[in-house]
Amino acid sequence: MDLVAIEEIKRLKYRYLRCLDLKRWDELAAVFVADATAQYGDRLTFTGRDEVVDFMRGNLGTDMITVHHCHHPEIDVSADGATAVGTWHLEDTVIMTTHRLMLTGAAFYEDRYVRTGDGWRIAHTGYERTFEAMRSLDDTPSFRLTANRWAAEPPPGDGG
Amino acid sequence: MDLVAIEEIKRLKYRYLRCLDLKRWDELAAVFVADATAQYGDRLTFTGRDEVVDFMRGNLGTDMITVHHCHHPEIDVSADGATAVGTWHLEDTVIMTTHRLMLTGAAFYEDRYVRTGDGWRIAHTGYERTFEAMRSLDDTPSFRLTANRWAAEPPPGDGG
Amino acid sequence: MDLVAIEEIKRLKYRYLRCLDLKRWDELAAVFVADATAQYGDRLTFTGRDEVVDFMRGNLGTDMITVHHCHHPEIDVSADGATAVGTWHLEDTVIMTTHRLMLTGAAFYEDRYVRTGDGWRIAHTGYERTFEAMRSLDDTPSFRLTANRWAAEPPPGDGG
Repeated sequence: MDLVAIEEIKRLKYRYLRCLDLKRWDELAAVFVADATAQYGDRLTFTGRDEVVDFMRGNLGTDMITVHHCHHPEIDVSADGATAVGTWHLEDTVIMTTHRLMLTGAAFYEDRYVRTGDGWRIAHTGYERTFEAMRSLDDTPSFRLTANRWAAEPPPGDGG
Repeated sequence: MDLVAIEEIKRLKYRYLRCLDLKRWDELAAVFVADATAQYGDRLTFTGRDEVVDFMRGNLGTDMITVHHCHHPEIDVSADGATAVGTWHLEDTVIMTTHRLMLTGAAFYEDRYVRTGDGWRIAHTGYERTFEAMRSLDDTPSFRLTANRWAAEPPPGDGG
Repeated sequence: MDLVAIEEIKRLKYRYLRCLDLKRWDELAAVFVADATAQYGDRLTFTGRDEVVDFMRGNLGTDMITVHHCHHPEIDVSADGATAVGTWHLEDTVIMTTHRLMLTGAAFYEDRYVRTGDGWRIAHTGYERTFEAMRSLDDTPSFRLTANRWAAEPPPGDGG
């Protein structure tokens, strides 16, 4: 069992998740190989890291608070140490402040990783939903944000 | 510190949790020794892996979306490497689609593991709740499932 | 990569989180060096472990059910093995049973650790919120606690 490779791959995934939730799109791109593929549930499929990152950059503006937590890494490194596969269990929350909607969900990831000269990179990432639920914040009128990392920055298209 | 044993025991726990949420009951049975015991909170106590798995199979049908995430592994392997104990922090969500109820909760697990000829197995698993809460989805009328892994399969006893 | 040090630091953090949610204040103090500092979001800054623990002891009584989960450890140990830095992603839930309020949130931790004669200790812990939200349980009238570890113990100031 190659414990160093396993720890490096966990770190790669955590960097991906941290850059995603902090909206650091250029850093996010660096966790993928150029021809990486991604499939998020039934509706979102991408070919090439640029397509993945462009989608995130275009759709996850400052009026979208995202929290993605991945748990339960089950990582198998190939015998030659060149590739690996990994299963994770996602829990995600998205608060859409403009539209006053909240998404919650869970999913099982099946990833593929490759070792490059610069360390491990994501070759494929994808998940199948256990569930995804949407609700309006209008159902809980007392709900209020007491902290919001993105509040200082206006949402895209907001003139105020 | 036996890092390989610790990683193997984490994997064992993650397999248990994945098989539970994916309703793979035969695979779930394989993580236990035959005489394993389980105690989930104050109300659910089981002796023997068959009793544990039969309960899950009988009570967690396709109208029960379950998400069990275990965090914070504190695993101690015995000096001879034959047994181990582990503490975990659970977060669980259960959406009961037929009854329109949602359970959320947290608990601290105290597990015991044994090394067998086929690898580590669970000898005892049990938790004490920090809290468990139940609510009706009727309180949030906008709540709707936008993905449900089990939707294609009819709930047990559902004729339609 | 010093995998033993990384695992030891994860254990330190998990002990901190377990003692916090189990309200074991004396054990909580033992994870810090005496002159440790803490900064929880914009509003809570502490100097010295006594100040940190006194705040917790004074503000997190039995009418405050707390659940703190930390994910995604990215831990770097210094070349001489004497210090380390770590990033974590927090998810927290606080149910205030007397006031019928629920807090949920997420944050990124930036910690500093030091190796002492008694093992690793926290020198600084602090986080910046991604978001924090507050809601009243009165918005979900069906919400009820079906388990509460602290229910047997009266909340502070409660005569009944």
